[in-house]
Amino acid sequence: MKNDLLLKAARGENINRYPVWLMRQAGRILPEYRAVRNSLDGFKSLVKNPDLCCEVTIQPVDILDVDAAIIFSDILVVPEAMGLNYEMIEKKGPWFEKTIRSEFDFKKLDSNIDINDRLGYVFEAIKKTKKELNQRVPLIGFAGAPWTIFCYMVDGQGSKTFSESRKLLYQNPILAHDLLNEITNTTIQYLKGQIHNGVDIVQIFDSWAGILPKNQYEEFSMPYLEKICNAINEVPKTIFCKGAFSSIKNICLLNCETVGLDWTMNIPVVRTIVGEKKTLQGNLDPCLLYASSKNIEKETQKLLDSLSSKRHILNLGHGVYPDTNPENVKTFIKTIKNYEIN
Amino acid sequence: MKNDLLLKAARGENINRYPVWLMRQAGRILPEYRAVRNSLDGFKSLVKNPDLCCEVTIQPVDILDVDAAIIFSDILVVPEAMGLNYEMIEKKGPWFEKTIRSEFDFKKLDSNIDINDRLGYVFEAIKKTKKELNQRVPLIGFAGAPWTIFCYMVDGQGSKTFSESRKLLYQNPILAHDLLNEITNTTIQYLKGQIHNGVDIVQIFDSWAGILPKNQYEEFSMPYLEKICNAINEVPKTIFCKGAFSSIKNICLLNCETVGLDWTMNIPVVRTIVGEKKTLQGNLDPCLLYASSKNIEKETQKLLDSLSSKRHILNLGHGVYPDTNPENVKTFIKTIKNYEIN
Repeated sequence: MKNDLLLKAARGENINRYPVWLMRQAGRILPEYRAVRNSLDGFKSLVKNPDLCCEVTIQPVDILDVDAAIIFSDILVVPEAMGLNYEMIEKKGPWFEKTIRSEFDFKKLDSNIDINDRLGYVFEAIKKTKKELNQRVPLIGFAGAPWTIFCYMVDGQGSKTFSESRKLLYQNPILAHDLLNEITNTTIQYLKGQIHNGVDIVQIFDSWAGILPKNQYEEFSMPYLEKICNAINEVPKTIFCKGAFSSIKNICLLNCETVGLDWTMNIPVVRTIVGEKKTLQGNLDPCLLYASSKNIEKETQKLLDSLSSKRHILNLGHGVYPDTNPENVKTFIKTIKNYEIN
Repeated sequence: MKNDLLLKAARGENINRYPVWLMRQAGRILPEYRAVRNSLDGFKSLVKNPDLCCEVTIQPVDILDVDAAIIFSDILVVPEAMGLNYEMIEKKGPWFEKTIRSEFDFKKLDSNIDINDRLGYVFEAIKKTKKELNQRVPLIGFAGAPWTIFCYMVDGQGSKTFSESRKLLYQNPILAHDLLNEITNTTIQYLKGQIHNGVDIVQIFDSWAGILPKNQYEEFSMPYLEKICNAINEVPKTIFCKGAFSSIKNICLLNCETVGLDWTMNIPVVRTIVGEKKTLQGNLDPCLLYASSKNIEKETQKLLDSLSSKRHILNLGHGVYPDTNPENVKTFIKTIKNYEIN
């Protein structure tokens, strides 16, 4: 591979500069993406079109010069593969017609699904992208964490509190664990399929980690993250648990190479916890990219100067916001690429 | 006062049981509240009606047997007093027609307002409630933290990211500080007015504390909290910064009696930080109140058993959710009232 910095950093190998990519780099910030997206009748038409997924996945490598591509897709393809169809409503987000709130709902989910049959379109996109990338940079695969997928399957839409999901944890913990197990099994199959078709590293997004008390997070999310980490040994794994500060010590004990940090987390504090055992990823405030180039440079430099380990992958602490100017993203990336590690 | 447990606990005086109240206890969980609310043509008609505010403020004291009343109002009366009118849209939340995104917008705010003229309806409600309560329990006054009010004034509505507000911090920090200063000055006047009219303790809600990186939280929120804490010396103060875990040590240094904790915070950890210098308030997961009475009792008992100090006020870690069964709230409260401190 021409540029395998990301993989080296993930595995803790020697690097002379930090690799950088952005969560949601393939997406609305690029006019080239919007041109593709607007030619279609909806978000899902894009997700299910391997040729166009390949095209938008590679756009940020060409345009922004990032050190990795991440396959264009959505974490909600997993509940859909399990039999829970979703719609992506413009300016509102995902919406599920059916939700899982009882054993009856749970039993209606499709069982023993053939992952290649249900999610072959993602695998196809991965194969095409790998070929098209031609070993320029690694390709990242991903999935939602079981807890986060559970939130969408139970609440049926985005929410500030996901109180239906949290209610289920108290009212029917056995059903909750059954559903989490099913999601986990499907997710492992899905990630193995992604790896089989060519991704070089995988990331698990626990976007709603921050809404649970510590004891519940450690009962209803972490065991399933652990199961995934232990099942996937073919490629390095990154675990990103947004807002899960109370459990950060235990997250750092998971069988993964990299721990992602959101922009409210303190890198030096987490470094003290993990020592050199893990690579950390993150965590500039995505709103920094609204600042002037001078300030973007200054703050990025400050973060780089604060790193005390080579085990780091630069990223924002959250997905890049849709109205970010791509020129500002380039300034961020250039600053990192020009920074030499002593 | 017949029951001044809350004030005693706030001041660190000796108590033989923990006081308890609930954030948002006056509100949608009570059918008696909904009856009042439904007789009116909107939320704001209730907020601006001192007689009805008094009525719904006292309902939870009568019905739920809590150890304090909190005046029924909204944190958004402050931006309205400054000249930014808001609407409360059913199932959507607050919405501002005008927002503050430039010096030009800022200059259009009303200056040198007469707080009694603008917010006299709240003071009137407080006076009536104090009289009606007849010294049964303390009356809590409140305001939003300047940073949280800023978020609504800049974004103009609720948001998961408040990216317009955070953008302004990077693009025009001077304007941000000017606006935060204005909000702070109005808030101090407002709290002093509440105290003058009878509230026995005040709470500051920094609901959007958790969306800022530590350095920005300490630049754009904490100095204004500090200014408020230092200006108010007539009654005890509670500071509740939801999600501000990175700054919790510094929050614990503020000149206040009580620090509120959300349900993701770990009480023993914070107790280690504060020792006996502060009272802590919280922090049961509001979703616990969806559980069976048996489990509500068990989990409440567990939290009570985990407290190592008398400096504690029981509460949820967030406002009680609207679809909570009042009977479950009663179970929660009874468990606390039956618990004797050794």
